[in-house]
Amino acid sequence: MARIRLTLCYDGTAYHGWQVQPNAVTVQQVLQDAIERITGVRSGVTGCSRTDAGVHARMFCCAFDTASPLRGDKLCNALNAVLPRDVAVYEAEEVDEAFHPRYDAKGKRYVYHLHNGRHRDPFAEGYAWHVRWPLDEQALDRAAKDLIGTHDFAAFCAAGSSVEDTVRTVSHAAVTREGDRVTFSVEADGFLYNMVRIMVGTLHDMAAGKLPYDAIPAILQSGDRAAAGVTAPPHGLCLERVFYEERKGG
Amino acid sequence: MARIRLTLCYDGTAYHGWQVQPNAVTVQQVLQDAIERITGVRSGVTGCSRTDAGVHARMFCCAFDTASPLRGDKLCNALNAVLPRDVAVYEAEEVDEAFHPRYDAKGKRYVYHLHNGRHRDPFAEGYAWHVRWPLDEQALDRAAKDLIGTHDFAAFCAAGSSVEDTVRTVSHAAVTREGDRVTFSVEADGFLYNMVRIMVGTLHDMAAGKLPYDAIPAILQSGDRAAAGVTAPPHGLCLERVFYEERKGG
Repeated sequence: MARIRLTLCYDGTAYHGWQVQPNAVTVQQVLQDAIERITGVRSGVTGCSRTDAGVHARMFCCAFDTASPLRGDKLCNALNAVLPRDVAVYEAEEVDEAFHPRYDAKGKRYVYHLHNGRHRDPFAEGYAWHVRWPLDEQALDRAAKDLIGTHDFAAFCAAGSSVEDTVRTVSHAAVTREGDRVTFSVEADGFLYNMVRIMVGTLHDMAAGKLPYDAIPAILQSGDRAAAGVTAPPHGLCLERVFYEERKGG
Repeated sequence: MARIRLTLCYDGTAYHGWQVQPNAVTVQQVLQDAIERITGVRSGVTGCSRTDAGVHARMFCCAFDTASPLRGDKLCNALNAVLPRDVAVYEAEEVDEAFHPRYDAKGKRYVYHLHNGRHRDPFAEGYAWHVRWPLDEQALDRAAKDLIGTHDFAAFCAAGSSVEDTVRTVSHAAVTREGDRVTFSVEADGFLYNMVRIMVGTLHDMAAGKLPYDAIPAILQSGDRAAAGVTAPPHGLCLERVFYEERKGG
């Protein structure tokens, strides 16, 4: 038996997130189905995170154990031939048997796209949150900078989450614009449940005049989910990259 | 009655092209349905071009006559509320009653996207032609420059087309790369049937070693469709812009 790390990319539109659940199609399930078709054996696949329904991933890492001798492009091509067209495997390599995609991740980068135009963009459906009033990306970028650093992000964690340690270190946070496309990007050593979507919802509420642009320090200080903004919808969110010790693929 | 010019954008994946046809859903049909729902009257809509099944449009122009007093954003919002999510109207303005979207067009710009990576990109499915071997975008850009000028493009017209005058003026042709995304863009005063897709197929055949990179002058000279390359698949093609006298929206 050997442990294989897969690097994949998926359009999450049609999926109820990563994790297998009853009565819903998930990415983990279609991947386990594909591995079973290729290797003849059902293998459990462990992911680097549990993305929500409708969330996308440009780079997602997962691992499974197999006796199959297939590696690299041969395994990628075999899996891609049987996977649905909205999921693709880019790399497949043997790793140390102690490797764990979630516990060994040193950090992640997410991006969140907003379509900021009067009318909807047919090509952004499912990939960007449509906000019709003009967003001031420079003011939002300055506001986002207050997220950087080691803070208790309890206020940016979905109510009801059972995680105990809510301190995380955000190393990058920025808002940029290209035409009607406004993008929030954030990098941290770890993310709490709904953390990026609540960050985006908070920036959104600033642009809507519901929160001042300098609100983030006080929200962090409060530790109160109710002090932050709305939870942005899932379809604008994309897991962009997962970093490991050697910053694999970085 | 007044003539209204609509500027729209659509993801062509689900459509059998622009033009109404029996037993297939087309963009013209869903737009005429939407106009009828808003105005209460069935109006014929004339388009600027007949895009093929699966082809997209970032900016498509069409016109219809109506007694409705709705204009501008009010008409856009009313139409967008009833149109499917893969079609959106951006502008709606009253134009001269002699305006014709096809005959009055001074030029068009198309882009064609290729995904040039070993494995497929789930986000490019339906929007880019997947070519696995490495494309030399600089050699292709130099080759594409041979398309520029006033030429008889008969060799770049689908066999069986009934058009008589096959002379067109190409004012811009370029191949660029951004990561795995290679894009061919071309601007001309008019396009023959399948002209852009045959141009792309010809560049593709150069990259595949089936045609030399300097083949275009001889292909143009021949006037022979068989001398050019394959017809690239429709889903990589997007009508990017239509130019009118005032270069509306340009």
